Amino acid sequence: MSEPVLFYFDFSSPYGYFAAVKIDELVGGFGRTVTWKPMMLGVAMKETGNRPLADQPLKGEYCKRDWDRLARHMKVAWRMPTPFPIATLAAARAFYWLDDKDPGLAKRFARATFDTYFGNGRDITAPETVADIAAPLGVDRAALLAAVQDPAVKERLKQETAEALRRGVFGSPFFVVDGEPIWGSDRLWMVKHWLREGGW
Amino acid sequence: MSEPVLFYFDFSSPYGYFAAVKIDELVGGFGRTVTWKPMMLGVAMKETGNRPLADQPLKGEYCKRDWDRLARHMKVAWRMPTPFPIATLAAARAFYWLDDKDPGLAKRFARATFDTYFGNGRDITAPETVADIAAPLGVDRAALLAAVQDPAVKERLKQETAEALRRGVFGSPFFVVDGEPIWGSDRLWMVKHWLREGGW
Repeated sequence: MSEPVLFYFDFSSPYGYFAAVKIDELVGGFGRTVTWKPMMLGVAMKETGNRPLADQPLKGEYCKRDWDRLARHMKVAWRMPTPFPIATLAAARAFYWLDDKDPGLAKRFARATFDTYFGNGRDITAPETVADIAAPLGVDRAALLAAVQDPAVKERLKQETAEALRRGVFGSPFFVVDGEPIWGSDRLWMVKHWLREGGW
Repeated sequence: MSEPVLFYFDFSSPYGYFAAVKIDELVGGFGRTVTWKPMMLGVAMKETGNRPLADQPLKGEYCKRDWDRLARHMKVAWRMPTPFPIATLAAARAFYWLDDKDPGLAKRFARATFDTYFGNGRDITAPETVADIAAPLGVDRAALLAAVQDPAVKERLKQETAEALRRGVFGSPFFVVDGEPIWGSDRLWMVKHWLREGGW
């Protein structure tokens, strides 16, 4: 039995959102599964010395234009959120808390979170907003609000982010396929190639 | 008559090399031409606050692995050069000097320069090496060595780099197609899409 493909992302990453729309169907076509791994991209940026795209002269403006045209090209909902970028601690902690109970539910929650932030442009920083997103999926609001403040859940996200860095993850989205690192929503063709050929 | 597609790159950019292998054939398939525009990527990096890929923890190691597998995938010669990255002033000045005489010759020189640096791993910093690369193409060594020290040629490269920044160029390769900015060797599909559809 093959290991799942790892899909690392930050909920505040537009390119993570674009990859999230496609990755499960792509990987599923090869009879493989995907494990979603939200992380704190800011921690990785401290390691690499990078800054958020939106803060970079020239590159920030370019990326905003790119997100808009990519969304039109892919025919997915897109609305530039404000504020952007944000700290996605509450969403990422809620994800891992749900993932331990039901990975399918955690993925549905993750997709709904991306849709809220980048599809509707609604700020997802506040735990209350994260609870709003999860409630229609049958998640108890009070339990979620308690979970995102639970020291064990906080620690879990820290550990997952540290594990990501150990695997060499420095951006979002970032895939690990049978140990092979593949970075960027532009590189889904490479994930496909690996799954088909097993290497280069 | 349509404007040529602009192809900005730095001779020290591996992704610029990979794009250089493909861009003319791709664009030519739509009855359009490409104008090559070497630039000083270091000047753009000062503007964006970025550092060379090879100097970035995690990302640098990842990119070295990526260049190697991309070269195998594309079946192009690849040898990680030492030193890397380098200042490519002599090559870029020689390019513009040749370009004013014969753009076809300038492109042949640019391809040979990329092949020398990334195909053979040979340092191309020294003007003498650049003269060695140009000589088999019929370029007089002494004239080239004088040209790369000519204040007018030096100024030309400065102006081309400043013009690139005004167009929003911050990386290599970077294409401008009918005013549309497209960054990265991963995005040749987007150049193609624009040439076919004229937008999104």
